[in-house]
Amino acid sequence: MSPKITTELLKHLRQVMKNPRYVQEPVQAYIVPSGDAHQSEYIAPCDCRRAFISGFDGSAGTAIVTEQHAAMWTDGRYFLQAAHQMDSNWTLMKMGLKDTPTQEDWLVSVLPEGSKVGVDPFIIPADQWKRMSKVLRSAGHDLVPVKENLIDTIWTDCPQRPCKPLITLDLSYTGVSWRDKIVALRSKMAERKVMWFVVTALDEVAWLFNLRGSDVEYNPVFFAYAVIGMNTIRLFIDGDRMMDPAVREHLQLDSTLEPEFKIQVMPYGSILSELQAVGAGLSPKEKVWLSDKASYALTEAIPKAYRYLTPYTPICIAKAVKNAAETEGMRRAHIKDAVALCELFNWLEKEVPKGTVTEIVAADKAEEFRSQQKDFVELSFATISSTGPNGAIIHYKPVPETNRTLSVNEIYLLDSGAQYKDGTTDVTRTMHFGTPSAYEKECFTYVLKGHIAVSAAIFPNGTKGHLLDSFARSALWDCGLDYLHGTGHGVGSFLNVHEGPCGISYKTFADEPLEAGMIVSDEPGYYEDGSFGIRIENVVLVIPAETKYNFKNRGSLTFEPLTLVPIQTKMIDVNLLTEKERHWVNEYHQQCRDVVGAELERQGRHEALRWLLRETEPLAPLQ
Amino acid sequence: MSPKITTELLKHLRQVMKNPRYVQEPVQAYIVPSGDAHQSEYIAPCDCRRAFISGFDGSAGTAIVTEQHAAMWTDGRYFLQAAHQMDSNWTLMKMGLKDTPTQEDWLVSVLPEGSKVGVDPFIIPADQWKRMSKVLRSAGHDLVPVKENLIDTIWTDCPQRPCKPLITLDLSYTGVSWRDKIVALRSKMAERKVMWFVVTALDEVAWLFNLRGSDVEYNPVFFAYAVIGMNTIRLFIDGDRMMDPAVREHLQLDSTLEPEFKIQVMPYGSILSELQAVGAGLSPKEKVWLSDKASYALTEAIPKAYRYLTPYTPICIAKAVKNAAETEGMRRAHIKDAVALCELFNWLEKEVPKGTVTEIVAADKAEEFRSQQKDFVELSFATISSTGPNGAIIHYKPVPETNRTLSVNEIYLLDSGAQYKDGTTDVTRTMHFGTPSAYEKECFTYVLKGHIAVSAAIFPNGTKGHLLDSFARSALWDCGLDYLHGTGHGVGSFLNVHEGPCGISYKTFADEPLEAGMIVSDEPGYYEDGSFGIRIENVVLVIPAETKYNFKNRGSLTFEPLTLVPIQTKMIDVNLLTEKERHWVNEYHQQCRDVVGAELERQGRHEALRWLLRETEPLAPLQ
Repeated sequence: MSPKITTELLKHLRQVMKNPRYVQEPVQAYIVPSGDAHQSEYIAPCDCRRAFISGFDGSAGTAIVTEQHAAMWTDGRYFLQAAHQMDSNWTLMKMGLKDTPTQEDWLVSVLPEGSKVGVDPFIIPADQWKRMSKVLRSAGHDLVPVKENLIDTIWTDCPQRPCKPLITLDLSYTGVSWRDKIVALRSKMAERKVMWFVVTALDEVAWLFNLRGSDVEYNPVFFAYAVIGMNTIRLFIDGDRMMDPAVREHLQLDSTLEPEFKIQVMPYGSILSELQAVGAGLSPKEKVWLSDKASYALTEAIPKAYRYLTPYTPICIAKAVKNAAETEGMRRAHIKDAVALCELFNWLEKEVPKGTVTEIVAADKAEEFRSQQKDFVELSFATISSTGPNGAIIHYKPVPETNRTLSVNEIYLLDSGAQYKDGTTDVTRTMHFGTPSAYEKECFTYVLKGHIAVSAAIFPNGTKGHLLDSFARSALWDCGLDYLHGTGHGVGSFLNVHEGPCGISYKTFADEPLEAGMIVSDEPGYYEDGSFGIRIENVVLVIPAETKYNFKNRGSLTFEPLTLVPIQTKMIDVNLLTEKERHWVNEYHQQCRDVVGAELERQGRHEALRWLLRETEPLAPLQ
Repeated sequence: MSPKITTELLKHLRQVMKNPRYVQEPVQAYIVPSGDAHQSEYIAPCDCRRAFISGFDGSAGTAIVTEQHAAMWTDGRYFLQAAHQMDSNWTLMKMGLKDTPTQEDWLVSVLPEGSKVGVDPFIIPADQWKRMSKVLRSAGHDLVPVKENLIDTIWTDCPQRPCKPLITLDLSYTGVSWRDKIVALRSKMAERKVMWFVVTALDEVAWLFNLRGSDVEYNPVFFAYAVIGMNTIRLFIDGDRMMDPAVREHLQLDSTLEPEFKIQVMPYGSILSELQAVGAGLSPKEKVWLSDKASYALTEAIPKAYRYLTPYTPICIAKAVKNAAETEGMRRAHIKDAVALCELFNWLEKEVPKGTVTEIVAADKAEEFRSQQKDFVELSFATISSTGPNGAIIHYKPVPETNRTLSVNEIYLLDSGAQYKDGTTDVTRTMHFGTPSAYEKECFTYVLKGHIAVSAAIFPNGTKGHLLDSFARSALWDCGLDYLHGTGHGVGSFLNVHEGPCGISYKTFADEPLEAGMIVSDEPGYYEDGSFGIRIENVVLVIPAETKYNFKNRGSLTFEPLTLVPIQTKMIDVNLLTEKERHWVNEYHQQCRDVVGAELERQGRHEALRWLLRETEPLAPLQ
């Protein structure tokens, strides 16, 4: 991976930062956040402005360019990747390390007195604007909205914004109709005494209307906003996709409906002016509910006194708790996904020793097996297929320049998943096709112990996920090892593979309490820079637990693995496991045999079935 | 404990809330916070305004009185106590439970439109003012400062503010002179480019000047403020205590000093006007550093643009990391404290079966034994001496009406500590003087497992204490049990028994990372309402740990118990312990024998020594 040469680009950007055609006054710094106007994590090519200006294309990062400096903030998953992709114009700011300044503090330290810091008001979330603006102002600087995106002005071959056909989902997938979702939303609005709710996150629009799209790779969403009133529904969306009879039927656009369920379709680009009109027409006490992560531009459209901002919207919270139809769909999707991975690992076991399987070949093969499964739509994120030292690059994606050949001498880490119409998968397995070293087995076993500690944890109803994060680290910590990422994230139901409001991470304190029906990943790891990476990831469902004393009827929760893919026993140092942990592995493998074995049988995949049976032999009792 | 009858008092308060003699405009609600003008947790009798108006005298709680309602917010430690002490005029708001409204939300729900909410601006911290004021304003109400404290206007027999003599501490206790502390503080100020630092917390003033007092029971502090400039030192303190030759000598008040170390002594009551004068005389860029928990009144004295507010002051952070002299002092204090407790428990073992020992007698006896130790000053908090159901009242203090007699049929919980000139102690032991039930032993053993999980935890340098909280709960959670308080708090060095900025609690996310030299408590518990309480508490020192891989030179930390008092083995169900846990108990008890045994021998306390040896017999191997 050679770095992108950005000298000319930065020169050009610094020119437009002073060009009165684009800025009212020159800006001494320009912030290029990661997201799009919906604060999406995964974005369309036309929104990859930070990658365009810097070369760094990981999923999280913020670039800031001043007259003298160019700096990139990203987290532990991306330290190595960012260092590889950026040229020497850029300074890497490693978030999460003690000595790394915040963006605001860094700006204050490098800017000349009374500077203007520019940012696209549609891209920066309102909460971040507020925080930065405050710090900058107290240091004598100003954060200013720059209406025209300055990257777009220098990005001559910027791709078009996608506008792909929609998929309608019926009740067998969603469990609840969009009408009932609107009713539930309005009841939450009534509870909080708000008259309007603005849906800005793409997955929230998709979930609310039981529609899916493919405007953004890996995330089955489409560019749209919605504004829900107590008696009106406005959907802001472009293109001729609203001409599709299936969509018209699904949204009942041509039916005679009660007025409060009649959807008004409006152009995507009219959201700001429509919202300003709503803002201007409010009577006292009429509040408008927005996420505090909605863009500064849309938030400002509503006068401050009328805003009702929350970190998580009622849709975000409702979406996180999967209903029976969604849970059953997720189960089906994970069984199909396991079938594909059994095929893949069986194939790899035979092919790797021949020395012809590269990381890219393995990733493509994984996609091929997945695409053979019913209701497969696309992958749920870029496959992380990494061997040896590439495994230590936490969110690595193989490209021709970095593509290594799998061998019997190196650890192979595969983190991959798919979108099926009935559910979203995300699974990581770490394997060795030869003989792992004692050290590799030791590290793998600590990671496994952490994985089990979370998966088997029992905790009272109402516990927030971040309180479980240390369980995943305890075995690693005992030996002086750790990993620089959270332990788990929420997973959507045929939606974004990363979703809020729950998760398991030392970094998140604003997470909502876990409740039965939520789905998160459990994925501790260990990374030895330059040598190997280990991660063991299952998607798990929060379920009620049975305990002896049941927290005085407060209720108990635990997790049930939805992912049912063997964990390579060859990598386990059984002597480092407790009896309880050994039992957990054997029970888990028995479940893989029972559930996935039956499906392999049904699909007539006999060789993969034999592989599954070999890989799920019970661990021998402790010595 | 019978509740305080508050009907007349509330009537009187509601009158002054409308009396133009005290309020510019009538206030529809009046907030009575817990603290004093220094936001102290433990307060002098003259500052116990919330207890005066409500009857509830726990260490944490906020009362709000409106024309119709009177409500009290407190946390899990005090639910039972508050319910017992307050009459039916009061509604108890149980903080930490999901359905309990915040004070702001509750006010919004009960107040008539456009209400004024009054509060003493010296008592409410600035950060809390800001939060409440914002919510109230957005709901159309106003938070207003009421200069005269309304409780004081109706509190006819309010005691005088204490003004007791000071204790000077020499280098053998403090390790660092006050001059060197000022130098270090000024260097932190220079780093942040602030010109002034306002010391508002009483323990910070005491620590900075190496002085102690006894204005507040249990906390060896004195009423004072300090304002430190780059070239000036102002100490705001009342009374003739500055006439004491020892104090004058210690502070070098009569010496010829470099001007920047010359202390200007000023009246305590002049802080606001002096600070306003500082605020008025600031040049651009001259910032004033205050805690964001400093009172609203003092914070407002500095114009907003000149304020530099942080959640923890540099003194708070420096004070938390104990130096060698302080650590050695804490060790000595804990050995003496253990001697006193061995005497006490030996005495209790003989006396309890006679049926003559009440909770108060036991508490007094504990104080008597402690007072026999060198450099004993006073207790560090009100002794929690509780038997049977009283043990479930987490911060119980025996009074004649509740005083139970210890017996061989009930669990006894003693949470107590002392101030010695060389250190502060805080220890909880739970004992049975007869035969505990299987259930009592089971609960005790889970609590012990949690205690050990924290005490023996190994974690990377820079870890925040709240990430360890769940370790203390895991064994309880597995069986559906939990406790409604944090696991640990920072402990001062001959200072407040509760101090920031570190701790171990699921509730605190703003804690500073743990570092070697910090001292915290480790005190999980389990409480069965109406039956018994269990808590096992040691004070522990953060020390470097040795690990196999040492976090790639980031360094490892763990804890060393400073408290060396036997944990009653009779209460342990050994079969619930792992081999590692059993080993921990035996090692701990061996250390009690070695260290405390030697001191008991030296002090000629042979009977207590025999008790110690009996109580520290190694646990038998697991069956």
